[in-house]
Amino acid sequence: MVGNEILTGKIEDTNTRYLARVLFELGVALRQVVICPDETDIIVRELNALRAAHDMVFTSGGVGPTHDDITIDAVAAAFGRPVVESPEIAAMIRSHFGDIVTPAHLRMANMPEGSELVRSARSGWPTVVCENVYILPGVPEIFERKLDALRERLDEGQRFFNHTVYTHCDEGEIAELLTTLTFAHPAVTIGSYLVLSDPTYRVRVTFDSVDALASQVAADAFTAALPVEKLARRT
Amino acid sequence: MVGNEILTGKIEDTNTRYLARVLFELGVALRQVVICPDETDIIVRELNALRAAHDMVFTSGGVGPTHDDITIDAVAAAFGRPVVESPEIAAMIRSHFGDIVTPAHLRMANMPEGSELVRSARSGWPTVVCENVYILPGVPEIFERKLDALRERLDEGQRFFNHTVYTHCDEGEIAELLTTLTFAHPAVTIGSYLVLSDPTYRVRVTFDSVDALASQVAADAFTAALPVEKLARRT
Repeated sequence: MVGNEILTGKIEDTNTRYLARVLFELGVALRQVVICPDETDIIVRELNALRAAHDMVFTSGGVGPTHDDITIDAVAAAFGRPVVESPEIAAMIRSHFGDIVTPAHLRMANMPEGSELVRSARSGWPTVVCENVYILPGVPEIFERKLDALRERLDEGQRFFNHTVYTHCDEGEIAELLTTLTFAHPAVTIGSYLVLSDPTYRVRVTFDSVDALASQVAADAFTAALPVEKLARRT
Repeated sequence: MVGNEILTGKIEDTNTRYLARVLFELGVALRQVVICPDETDIIVRELNALRAAHDMVFTSGGVGPTHDDITIDAVAAAFGRPVVESPEIAAMIRSHFGDIVTPAHLRMANMPEGSELVRSARSGWPTVVCENVYILPGVPEIFERKLDALRERLDEGQRFFNHTVYTHCDEGEIAELLTTLTFAHPAVTIGSYLVLSDPTYRVRVTFDSVDALASQVAADAFTAALPVEKLARRT
């Protein structure tokens, strides 16, 4: 995630949540999010740490035609590759802008040498992928469309299953029970969240697993242990 | 920022934007945001990198009474300090919960040894500060209240000044002009953002500086160079 605009509070970052939801639906674990300023050395450093530690990295932002769009250069620098123009994207840009095309527009055809262009019927413009780094734009509508276009490619058939129990408890009342359940159901990630903005419940308890039955059994065990008047609802 | 709930898309992270806005108002540059899973080794590693590189670090989340609340332990581990109970916070918890107090509730009195408690009339509960790490809760309403309570402490009188010009341009048309202005106004950080969700303009150009006049002069120069029909509005 690249962008001064998020770090200065000018623009709300909605791409993190969209990415998190899409990856969760596809059974892909999102492990870390880093939001950086528009500075090449910092982006290169963070990108090198992330791409070494994770199977895939998604960047958002910094791919337009202006001076503050430095993500392509930073990805290329991280991989030690030159930046080259994609003839295919350059042709699309020329066709799109016609007579008013500028050298700045054509900067959007740049990519790290040896990148793959991932095409999809869902999105007219291809996505540049450099090894395990997927380069996406920051504008939310385009980020979402391009990410949607990658769903088939990212989907390896894994799924996360979730059961959620909404309670009227405070967290202190159920902490011991949740600790017991965590040890009893090691395949399930149990999360407990105090919510003050919804008057219909107080604490939301989530049971995530790649094993549908395990998620359900753990949620059942929690629900069964809860005094009935403390249960708000369950999904 | 600590939390599986954000990485799985269950809960929207609103704390990043609140923190970004408050720090911008106080003239403090937010340089990086990292969102981690609820895993001690990762939090320790990220925290040690962040606290070495920056004057201040703010954590959000992972400070409740349940098994997945591990931020205090992780901060203590990062500093190589034991976790101790704050007698003052423990007394507040006992007074708050009365007879129903549990050992889980009292976990919320834990802090890294040698931490400072920052009190404020704006917030009943003190904030635990371990050297340059400010430990804040993830629940947005409480995060915001506690951050507001820290405003006086964080304010060193520095200010950022911002002028923003909203245009009907596409970014390619103004890229060269913005590059020229970036070199001509080195004290100003110029940002350019394509926005598709607001029909009243297309590209928002921001001029940030610690120097009020410099920000205004750069925005004036940009506005003057813009064909009048391309100007949507200016703030």
